[in-house]
Amino acid sequence: MPPYKLYCFGESGNAYKVALYLETNAISWEPVFVDFFNGETKTAAYRETVNVMGEAPVLVCGDQKHTQSGAILTFLANMHKKHDGKSPEEQQEILRWILFDNHKLTSPIATLRFMVTLKKMPESDVTEHLRGRATAALAILDAQLAKHPFVIGPRLSIADYSLCGYLFYGDELPFDMGKYKNIKSWLDRIRDLPRWKHPYDLMPRSKAS
Amino acid sequence: MPPYKLYCFGESGNAYKVALYLETNAISWEPVFVDFFNGETKTAAYRETVNVMGEAPVLVCGDQKHTQSGAILTFLANMHKKHDGKSPEEQQEILRWILFDNHKLTSPIATLRFMVTLKKMPESDVTEHLRGRATAALAILDAQLAKHPFVIGPRLSIADYSLCGYLFYGDELPFDMGKYKNIKSWLDRIRDLPRWKHPYDLMPRSKAS
Repeated sequence: MPPYKLYCFGESGNAYKVALYLETNAISWEPVFVDFFNGETKTAAYRETVNVMGEAPVLVCGDQKHTQSGAILTFLANMHKKHDGKSPEEQQEILRWILFDNHKLTSPIATLRFMVTLKKMPESDVTEHLRGRATAALAILDAQLAKHPFVIGPRLSIADYSLCGYLFYGDELPFDMGKYKNIKSWLDRIRDLPRWKHPYDLMPRSKAS
Repeated sequence: MPPYKLYCFGESGNAYKVALYLETNAISWEPVFVDFFNGETKTAAYRETVNVMGEAPVLVCGDQKHTQSGAILTFLANMHKKHDGKSPEEQQEILRWILFDNHKLTSPIATLRFMVTLKKMPESDVTEHLRGRATAALAILDAQLAKHPFVIGPRLSIADYSLCGYLFYGDELPFDMGKYKNIKSWLDRIRDLPRWKHPYDLMPRSKAS
């Protein structure tokens, strides 16, 4: 099988969720650079030929294109039988945490980091609002990780790949991660996976460093 | 089989996604009222015994509890074989639109309506920010619905139930829906389903009317 192609860029935690899955499972892939900060995902060409949702990541597999990181992870887990749910109950549990990630965790964290760290916008009511939502979601994740080493139990699953995506950007996260002790230990466990890499070492960057 | 129990309240578009699926498919269910506006979902009791994520809806099926509307819809569609994906490709397409809904559409729309309509907060940079995100997502949905009557093609699926959840609140939505012609026609098609009801006619309200 030829390697997967992944439309991605280093700053995207959503792309990183997929890139990290492929890399740590030694699945052959290659990046297709998306120049997000110069507006590539907003162009008509990108929306018509790559992704109607105007987003990265996009995974190309033969003549199929998959989008939305949670859907891509589900596709890959089903295909490679790695870190998938081994029963309908586990699949359901994985899905609800992937949805929680998209709805409650990644959504405010990605936007907040984009505004404060990448765009250097000043603190405002908007950033405070986003920080409130982000920290509420982090507290829920931290409480879940007090129960067992990974999100759905003793075993790593694609829910972990989804939820950790933005949390490896370290100093770029504009809030204090120090108080989430269970999240910290969990990130250490993921960082110990063979072939783990930081997002900027795994995908080309869109923005000048 | 005894009826499903659904933890819900009338103002929740996320609960409505599930309630509408159950009702329009004539699946037996009964509401369990959640007094959201008096803080019920934030209590330790709710988080410990109902939902660690502190959210509604929660679907009770025997001794199982399901949460996150997208995961509940997926569970119900698999169980009842109604409006599910009939092939792996369709399942994948449904999942990516449910994720898009959670990540990009419901997230800003629900928060914006909560702030402006339900909490009567004044317009601010936060509401403008959310309105920008909501209308960008609505434009993407409208473009998708220009191609076929329902989100993934000619047939209604749980992706439609997910995406329409907040859009039936009509005048409560603090932005102009008039320009999304394809969304309007699509909502009319959904409203024509047998047993369709408005959220407030389907679930008890948490807030005094």
